[in-house]
Amino acid sequence: MRKPSLETLVAQLDGEQLLSDLETLGQVGLRPEGGLARMAYGAADLEARQWVLAEMEALGMSATMDAAGNVIGVLAGDPALPALAAGSHTDSVPGGGKYDGALGVLAALACVRTLQAAGHRLRHPLLVVDFAGEEATTAASPTGSLSFVGQLQEHVLDQPAWTGQSTRRLLEEQGFEPTAMAANHPPMPIAAFLELHIEQGEQLDVADIPAGLVEGIVGIRRYLVTFQGQANHAGTTGMARRRDALVAAAPFVTAVRDVAMDHRIVGTVGRLAVHPGAPNVIPGRVEMDVEIRALDNAVLDRAERELAERARAAGATFFHGLRNEPVHADRRLMAALELACQQLNVRYTKMPSGAGHDAMNMAAICPFAMIFVPSVGGISHAPEEYTRPDHCVTGARLLLAALLELDSTLDA
Amino acid sequence: MRKPSLETLVAQLDGEQLLSDLETLGQVGLRPEGGLARMAYGAADLEARQWVLAEMEALGMSATMDAAGNVIGVLAGDPALPALAAGSHTDSVPGGGKYDGALGVLAALACVRTLQAAGHRLRHPLLVVDFAGEEATTAASPTGSLSFVGQLQEHVLDQPAWTGQSTRRLLEEQGFEPTAMAANHPPMPIAAFLELHIEQGEQLDVADIPAGLVEGIVGIRRYLVTFQGQANHAGTTGMARRRDALVAAAPFVTAVRDVAMDHRIVGTVGRLAVHPGAPNVIPGRVEMDVEIRALDNAVLDRAERELAERARAAGATFFHGLRNEPVHADRRLMAALELACQQLNVRYTKMPSGAGHDAMNMAAICPFAMIFVPSVGGISHAPEEYTRPDHCVTGARLLLAALLELDSTLDA
Repeated sequence: MRKPSLETLVAQLDGEQLLSDLETLGQVGLRPEGGLARMAYGAADLEARQWVLAEMEALGMSATMDAAGNVIGVLAGDPALPALAAGSHTDSVPGGGKYDGALGVLAALACVRTLQAAGHRLRHPLLVVDFAGEEATTAASPTGSLSFVGQLQEHVLDQPAWTGQSTRRLLEEQGFEPTAMAANHPPMPIAAFLELHIEQGEQLDVADIPAGLVEGIVGIRRYLVTFQGQANHAGTTGMARRRDALVAAAPFVTAVRDVAMDHRIVGTVGRLAVHPGAPNVIPGRVEMDVEIRALDNAVLDRAERELAERARAAGATFFHGLRNEPVHADRRLMAALELACQQLNVRYTKMPSGAGHDAMNMAAICPFAMIFVPSVGGISHAPEEYTRPDHCVTGARLLLAALLELDSTLDA
Repeated sequence: MRKPSLETLVAQLDGEQLLSDLETLGQVGLRPEGGLARMAYGAADLEARQWVLAEMEALGMSATMDAAGNVIGVLAGDPALPALAAGSHTDSVPGGGKYDGALGVLAALACVRTLQAAGHRLRHPLLVVDFAGEEATTAASPTGSLSFVGQLQEHVLDQPAWTGQSTRRLLEEQGFEPTAMAANHPPMPIAAFLELHIEQGEQLDVADIPAGLVEGIVGIRRYLVTFQGQANHAGTTGMARRRDALVAAAPFVTAVRDVAMDHRIVGTVGRLAVHPGAPNVIPGRVEMDVEIRALDNAVLDRAERELAERARAAGATFFHGLRNEPVHADRRLMAALELACQQLNVRYTKMPSGAGHDAMNMAAICPFAMIFVPSVGGISHAPEEYTRPDHCVTGARLLLAALLELDSTLDA
């Protein structure tokens, strides 16, 4: 029997089954008022994860849940070769939609289903991973992929989870062992990781482009900027004698916007607190969280310098907080995705991911690349999150085509 | 026996006793960490008020506590004449100083002491009032003076007090009857009310002028200004596509400052809240409390129009909140105070009061005027609040001189 061509094989991917799986999984943890409540390590999250594990077994994979709650399915290949891997996550924010994360896991299963139905055996083992705790519902997120790559630091588990208790306590109550999670490691060498995900922005939707090939995941830098003034009586203190911290701080909000636009990055003041915060008291202190994101560290460096200088000029203190380094997609994997788009005649664009993903952690142990499909209106983390059925199926087919291409070309 | 001249009588005012009284009363409710805790209708407040009542009786006044907790001492005069009145309050904010309010009450008692010691009988009855609940430690403040003039609305007592319970509950626990408080009225007709108070600003201190004659108490207008944007992901939403409520709101903070300075009034954004308020979420809504104060309603009208226009231009909603009308000091009383300054050779300036005082409520039933003495560094409502001893005594002597002048000239 002659092997079917790549195009024929990819065309056999069962789109209806994928869409049906999205609906089925979308019922697990569905709130009466709409939106999912599959918060990390909660009952609904674990139910969804068990459902994924059962699906993997039904597809002939050997499936396990690792020490961190990651569900890992292995489709056997040449044991001498490193694995190809694909996946994403199935946990949600409170009130999240049914596409964020779930699409990447279910699409990987759809690829396996297609291969099994066609009797097409890959050279490489294929790993499908449903990573645990990707969403920031615990202070340790993304917990599962950090643990998978052996980079989870146990002490972060002492920070709070969505339940109000510590993440450690939540994990222990669900039968997980924090020490084992921190000692976790990948189950086998991995040659490449591909993640299909919804964009969570509106760039693809607005431009009407069905696929975004992710060049990398932006670095994130946060700063705590504090303006110190002098709290005083708002009636008895003349304007000329005031040291109003809010009047000093307000221009910095627009400065952050201007610096971000000048450097063609994103910059946000998402939190601003005024102390003491009464209508008849002149603000004595204002603190704000400033965040910038970009794929290029040199650009971030320049924007950071400018922000720090402007803060200093305004008399504020500039404290360096969180710093996540940008990670770049692998060129060979990007080339495989571009080829897939060409083979399937799918229009695409290259773009950075402004949000974090499990792929960001996988970058520590293997090359990665990501496919984005359009989020209608750019909406995510909300019950209204929606990605068109044809875009979901196209994303899955691109994933399969790229896996087939990599299976042929890597380690050949 | 010839009556002593006004100058001789005023010179007999016992400054040492006044300063000693300030120290004695300053021990009542003193916190271990410094500052007073004589919040309205609390135990320390009532203890201070009972001390004042006992002092009045010791000075030969008939003293009572009225339905609202105001302590009222009457020095008898011609019952056919309306009373002259002087006083202030002895309650404090948490951590307040020993001069705010107390000086005006104790100085009025020092005037009575001087008159009694000299055997000088006034034509008019003299009322000394220690008003209850002047500070904004309950939502019904200033409770005592509002009740005294028959303008306390009972429903405001359902708003919370500093104890966390409703003001009504606090009052009832202390034996007061809210309905009786709302039905209260002045005990006799009053021809004039004089209040000595610390400035609570730094104008007199900076200019080194020992007395401020208060032309009036500013009107206060508050507005709730709301900027509606669209909350969104701070990483995936490009700068051009944002509707950032904080970026829209920030220029309005400086606009309030500019409008206030243009109109030579005070204007403050004392509270500003950002929703949802997370570092990685673009602000979807910002609301701020804007306050302007001035003595002239026409000026307030113009500033208000300009603020409302600027808010509208910025796409914000502009909600009219609290509005306290300005009240103006009486010309004859101001003339009596000016004469007193000249007689005692005290440098003075005329100025508005940027803060509210009990005199503001007394304006509803009688002419009023106020004397300010310097607050060192403009500090009040803090343990560091300080007014120099010589300024305290000068203030009391001006009060006595003005009362003597009014006693001679009013109803003559």
